[in-house]
Amino acid sequence: MDIVNDEFYMTLALDLAERAQGQTGTNPVVGCVIVKDGALAGVGTHLERGTPHAEVHALNMAGQKAAGSTVYVTLEPCSHYGATPPCSERLIAERVKRVVVACEDPNPLVAGTGIQMLRAAGIQVETGILRDRALRLNEAFIKYITSGHPFVTLKTASTLDGKIASKTGDSKWISNEESRELVHTLRHRHQGIMVGVSTVIADNPSLTTRLGVEGLHPIRIIVDSSLRIPPDSRVVTDGLAPTWILTTEKADATKRSRLEEQGIQVIPCGAGPRVDLKSAMAKLGQMGMSSILLEGGGTLNGSMLENKLVDRIIQFIAPKIVGGFDAPGNYMFSGYELMNQAIQLTKLEMERLDDNIYVTGIPVWH
Amino acid sequence: MDIVNDEFYMTLALDLAERAQGQTGTNPVVGCVIVKDGALAGVGTHLERGTPHAEVHALNMAGQKAAGSTVYVTLEPCSHYGATPPCSERLIAERVKRVVVACEDPNPLVAGTGIQMLRAAGIQVETGILRDRALRLNEAFIKYITSGHPFVTLKTASTLDGKIASKTGDSKWISNEESRELVHTLRHRHQGIMVGVSTVIADNPSLTTRLGVEGLHPIRIIVDSSLRIPPDSRVVTDGLAPTWILTTEKADATKRSRLEEQGIQVIPCGAGPRVDLKSAMAKLGQMGMSSILLEGGGTLNGSMLENKLVDRIIQFIAPKIVGGFDAPGNYMFSGYELMNQAIQLTKLEMERLDDNIYVTGIPVWH
Repeated sequence: MDIVNDEFYMTLALDLAERAQGQTGTNPVVGCVIVKDGALAGVGTHLERGTPHAEVHALNMAGQKAAGSTVYVTLEPCSHYGATPPCSERLIAERVKRVVVACEDPNPLVAGTGIQMLRAAGIQVETGILRDRALRLNEAFIKYITSGHPFVTLKTASTLDGKIASKTGDSKWISNEESRELVHTLRHRHQGIMVGVSTVIADNPSLTTRLGVEGLHPIRIIVDSSLRIPPDSRVVTDGLAPTWILTTEKADATKRSRLEEQGIQVIPCGAGPRVDLKSAMAKLGQMGMSSILLEGGGTLNGSMLENKLVDRIIQFIAPKIVGGFDAPGNYMFSGYELMNQAIQLTKLEMERLDDNIYVTGIPVWH
Repeated sequence: MDIVNDEFYMTLALDLAERAQGQTGTNPVVGCVIVKDGALAGVGTHLERGTPHAEVHALNMAGQKAAGSTVYVTLEPCSHYGATPPCSERLIAERVKRVVVACEDPNPLVAGTGIQMLRAAGIQVETGILRDRALRLNEAFIKYITSGHPFVTLKTASTLDGKIASKTGDSKWISNEESRELVHTLRHRHQGIMVGVSTVIADNPSLTTRLGVEGLHPIRIIVDSSLRIPPDSRVVTDGLAPTWILTTEKADATKRSRLEEQGIQVIPCGAGPRVDLKSAMAKLGQMGMSSILLEGGGTLNGSMLENKLVDRIIQFIAPKIVGGFDAPGNYMFSGYELMNQAIQLTKLEMERLDDNIYVTGIPVWH
């Protein structure tokens, strides 16, 4: 049984935020819980860019009970006029007594100003309650707001010998059902999903989100240096989600026009012959893409790692050994001379999913 | 706090057995605990082949208290005259009341006969208490007694991309300190340790057990088809443990004599040009080798897997990515056409060791 304390209410606020992951676009997820006279008085969560913030929903629900209440909010209340008026002003106007904040605004230009406004108005403010979980929930938003580049989650499923397919290219199945369901959860939570064109040619995947409940489909981003994508492939024709193709300035203009006529956005990234992945990330950021799930093969994964463009790695490990000298590996790149130069994952999380292992961490380059 | 019941005492018996792992040679480890009138009356564990069984030590300690007692023993008491008289007879003679057995004798020819003797004498017998743990403790003994071949534990430490070294051959360090300490525990518990000659040439390892306390060194088994081993290598000269070399009938006689003069046992396995690993395992079994820790490179590991000569796989996974198209992998062999033909590990155990993952299981070939 949980003990009723600040963490107890903040956990609900974080749970509210988490349920909206995937639907707020380039905005953070934020949850808010209001407690008055020892009882829950209001709850809210931010649903979509351009709509009210979590605090506003919770205050609206609390009504007269807002005055003298404690407000739990997962992210520092805003202090500036954006799409909506500043939440700090509203909290002051409602005469709340105490505000508990999980983490400060990640934008260094505005961090702390919301809290200062509240304190200046005589409201008690406490920060840092369950901060780590709050930061983890908004890691993509934080990367995007501070760099303008999308947060890239590399996801791979491989055998104990690091293979993503047998020597003949067979990959059905490496990971188990529970792992594969988690992959669809990851798709739901990312704005974009990225693969190489060879995956489209080999498997003709739809790259959509398929869950036990309805989910959100990510924008499909295909890396295709010379526009080899078959015009009748699912991602081009099925209309289930937008498809963006990253290519080069060398790409054939006729192919490009035909794809554009099919409703595909074609984005030239560099002079070629290969897609300039660094410039691609900058362009995708400018287009409002804040989070990408990279489901590449070994070669695309390797190129993204070599370019240090990966922010989180998620690896599902299946307890299998498939062998094959030329069977494709999970991360294929020229690699490092010494073991202590290897990419190291930090902030490791590990979980057993039936007979699979789920490992995730933040890559650090030496 | 543990509840006092059959499992409570059997756990101590199993703990006693476990502490002797590595010192009983081709004999099983066995622990025994005697309880009389609600109080501990005797404990014993089998120490070494040719010395008294666990029950004898415990009965000696219990003395007069043995009569009317309950005896917990991790393996079915023996019913035959071997190096020592049968324990079942002794238990009957001591007039114990009840015997609780974790697992039956694994030898199908004698399984159950000890229990039958006890029951025929009016002693209550219960079996199967903590059987899985008891079987796991003696898995090498069980394989050896039923097949005459050594139990082979393949141990490897690799990166998230399945590499055991960088492209230049650097491997210091892949796994963390805790994992490496566990490897020395594994060496202590196995009768033999097996590597390829290329490991000896590259690293000149001593292949001894180095723990925070004194341990037992395994017999060093080197796979060396053409006797390339340097005569001044540690395993040949240091005298810390016996060294056996597996080679072929084609091996140079002069080299062989020289090694034998240095006290090395040279074992020809097959006509060549490569060591016949299947015949090697049969020969090692005949020589009384019941458990081998295989610490091979990818090629030896791969050959052992291809020959289905591996009984358990232990893989330490370090959260690193080193890359390198030709960097050596953990299991290098020609591999399977289809993913569903891959070797599958069952009876999985997984544990997090700081930032490493320890995975172990029993390989199943399709």
